[in-house]
Amino acid sequence: MTQTSRPAQLTGEHRYRNGEKLVGRSDPVWQAAAEHGLLDIGVDPLPGGAYLVPETGHRFINMCSCSYLGLNDHPAIIEGAVQALRETGLTGPSVSPTRIQLNLLGRLEQELGELFGARVFSGLSCSVLTAGILPLLAAGQLAEGGPRVMVFDRHCHFSMAYVKPICADETIVLTCDHNDLDYLEEVCRQYPSVAYVGDGAYSMGGSAALDGLLELQDRYGLFLYLDDSHSLSLMGDRGEGFLRSHLEMSELTILVASLSKGFGTGGAAAMLGDPRLSTLLARHGGPLGWSQEMSVPLIGASLASAAIHRSAELGQLQRKLQANVDYFDELLPTPLAGNGLPVRRITVGDADRAIELSAELYRRGFYCSAVFFPIVARDEAGIRVIIRSDVSRQEWASLAGHIKEITAIA
Amino acid sequence: MTQTSRPAQLTGEHRYRNGEKLVGRSDPVWQAAAEHGLLDIGVDPLPGGAYLVPETGHRFINMCSCSYLGLNDHPAIIEGAVQALRETGLTGPSVSPTRIQLNLLGRLEQELGELFGARVFSGLSCSVLTAGILPLLAAGQLAEGGPRVMVFDRHCHFSMAYVKPICADETIVLTCDHNDLDYLEEVCRQYPSVAYVGDGAYSMGGSAALDGLLELQDRYGLFLYLDDSHSLSLMGDRGEGFLRSHLEMSELTILVASLSKGFGTGGAAAMLGDPRLSTLLARHGGPLGWSQEMSVPLIGASLASAAIHRSAELGQLQRKLQANVDYFDELLPTPLAGNGLPVRRITVGDADRAIELSAELYRRGFYCSAVFFPIVARDEAGIRVIIRSDVSRQEWASLAGHIKEITAIA
Repeated sequence: MTQTSRPAQLTGEHRYRNGEKLVGRSDPVWQAAAEHGLLDIGVDPLPGGAYLVPETGHRFINMCSCSYLGLNDHPAIIEGAVQALRETGLTGPSVSPTRIQLNLLGRLEQELGELFGARVFSGLSCSVLTAGILPLLAAGQLAEGGPRVMVFDRHCHFSMAYVKPICADETIVLTCDHNDLDYLEEVCRQYPSVAYVGDGAYSMGGSAALDGLLELQDRYGLFLYLDDSHSLSLMGDRGEGFLRSHLEMSELTILVASLSKGFGTGGAAAMLGDPRLSTLLARHGGPLGWSQEMSVPLIGASLASAAIHRSAELGQLQRKLQANVDYFDELLPTPLAGNGLPVRRITVGDADRAIELSAELYRRGFYCSAVFFPIVARDEAGIRVIIRSDVSRQEWASLAGHIKEITAIA
Repeated sequence: MTQTSRPAQLTGEHRYRNGEKLVGRSDPVWQAAAEHGLLDIGVDPLPGGAYLVPETGHRFINMCSCSYLGLNDHPAIIEGAVQALRETGLTGPSVSPTRIQLNLLGRLEQELGELFGARVFSGLSCSVLTAGILPLLAAGQLAEGGPRVMVFDRHCHFSMAYVKPICADETIVLTCDHNDLDYLEEVCRQYPSVAYVGDGAYSMGGSAALDGLLELQDRYGLFLYLDDSHSLSLMGDRGEGFLRSHLEMSELTILVASLSKGFGTGGAAAMLGDPRLSTLLARHGGPLGWSQEMSVPLIGASLASAAIHRSAELGQLQRKLQANVDYFDELLPTPLAGNGLPVRRITVGDADRAIELSAELYRRGFYCSAVFFPIVARDEAGIRVIIRSDVSRQEWASLAGHIKEITAIA
């Protein structure tokens, strides 16, 4: 036998996860959401960004789409996908991208790099980039100074928290309270080499404490690994996002972002402060080398989106989005109002009320997802509203009116 | 501070990985491969499945494409992708698939389910499916019997071995020698609840010890999680693959397979023995709920590929592939000859010789990737040849002739 000694206990240590508890605690709530018709909604797209449920004839607008600028149905992007398919005659080359890559993908990485002002390394999705990069960062392979103590922000996206156990096989893994810079500084004082893992614009609202993080980077050599999926394209002259438009890249910085949200296509981009890391990630980054690459149609769509990002149209879309954000904040002020980012939450406290609110809104033609534990803290259940550019003022006013009416009744 | 005590040591336990050692040991070999021009080859596709390196004018055939049936450039599949883009006008809905899904994706899961004779759950890639499913399996959430001791086959694909540390936070994780049924049976005797994790057709050649595994499943309730990416479409009347054409699904079986190889498109499919798991995976399967879904063009391409799988064309392609496999085995017998699967390795022993052989073949117009540690064991470096249907007998004869000539010289 490869390993003969029988371990002392039959379960793991549950330091970072406990599937049994997670399912046990949250499944009843998911089940309630399902019973209210809020899960697994099968739709056909309608012109104008609405959806139809063919079995019932119900029509609704998805107010939780992360296509913040409405680019996922932009005709030029659809044509970009079609053109790449026609030109190459391929879905993809079906070989490790570390070995052989289409020049079309190289061109996309080049164009994204010029847009965002950093070396860009592409990936199948942002979670795949994270799964490939964080363990190498933990092992001390992405910068000088040996293995890095990894400090995960408590609110960082699940895709990052998910790989904590992998990182923990390489180094010490800690979790800090959301934006707790004091804690982070204490860790930086205590350990020679530290990395911070968090979001730029948080998926459930709010943003990174960027100034403080940059100060810690400057003072202690803190490595910053930040996921800015929820602001890419929305902010910055070239759509470089909240983070990249507020910081200079350093060799101690990696920003990652999905291209399937504001950017409107699919796949993901890592902006590398140290361009030499590109080679290392391709060879040793696990899923970055053996997983699927971005498919040909998504490369073509992304090239078309990059062209929009270089044009005046980007600014127009960003301003439309900002006007909608401001308008919604005016209609329905929430704790996140005025932060300039487009994710809003209407917190109602318990999961049942959140589900009822979501169900009633859906009945009235708007889908706003009910969010509850473990998506948000147990006493912060509510609905999530994602403002975007391609929904009219009239619809935002209507949604805000319904929310006010229902929550006043409830 | 959230956690105040300073842990005893500055690094992790390295029970499942050691990034520093991995990079330190394998990077020099990767570097040698790069210096021989074998990595990061940027190509434009040429008609007939060849590639052009525009800077040098070099033309070559990729003899390591996993598009075993040549479906990645099938005109009907390209048209399927275009049609889905045109019909929906979308790249994708940019929302969690657990909440809202295009009916087009539901239709694909339905059609794949009919082809393969199992409930199908789709995913962005096979590694994403694995990352989502294995931790829940480890936690005992996918079948009765509590947390399962996870036994990973030493040769299982990296995408499975990668999540060992996540599983280890839930349960006991063991590694067994390749196809070591005796060991596996001993574990089954020792522990109440066990799962085995391995490949169907292995990416570096060979296959699972299926009969023995089924016997252990029958006798001990062993859960089988098997990745059959390298035989889907190639085998079975409907392309259901090596495993599915040799076993009946049980509630203790999950098979996963990439759609980007034989199937010719992208994304992945899990075949679930217990159809009820679909709901659980969508809600609690981490990346399965929050990660990107299959994009619209790949759904369209996959529907077109499913139609080919229902037609007589599939059998023709499978027979062409088989004829090429038999012909190659006749031209150049290797230890894997006659196993009916299309992955072959020419083992030369050390990595430098493998790289030189690969480089010389590439110069002569054939790309066969050099494989070395950690892809294969340290003393088993060599080249990998992937037989496929859409390369002519003449080319296989030419490749075999070159290999014989070069290895005789070397």
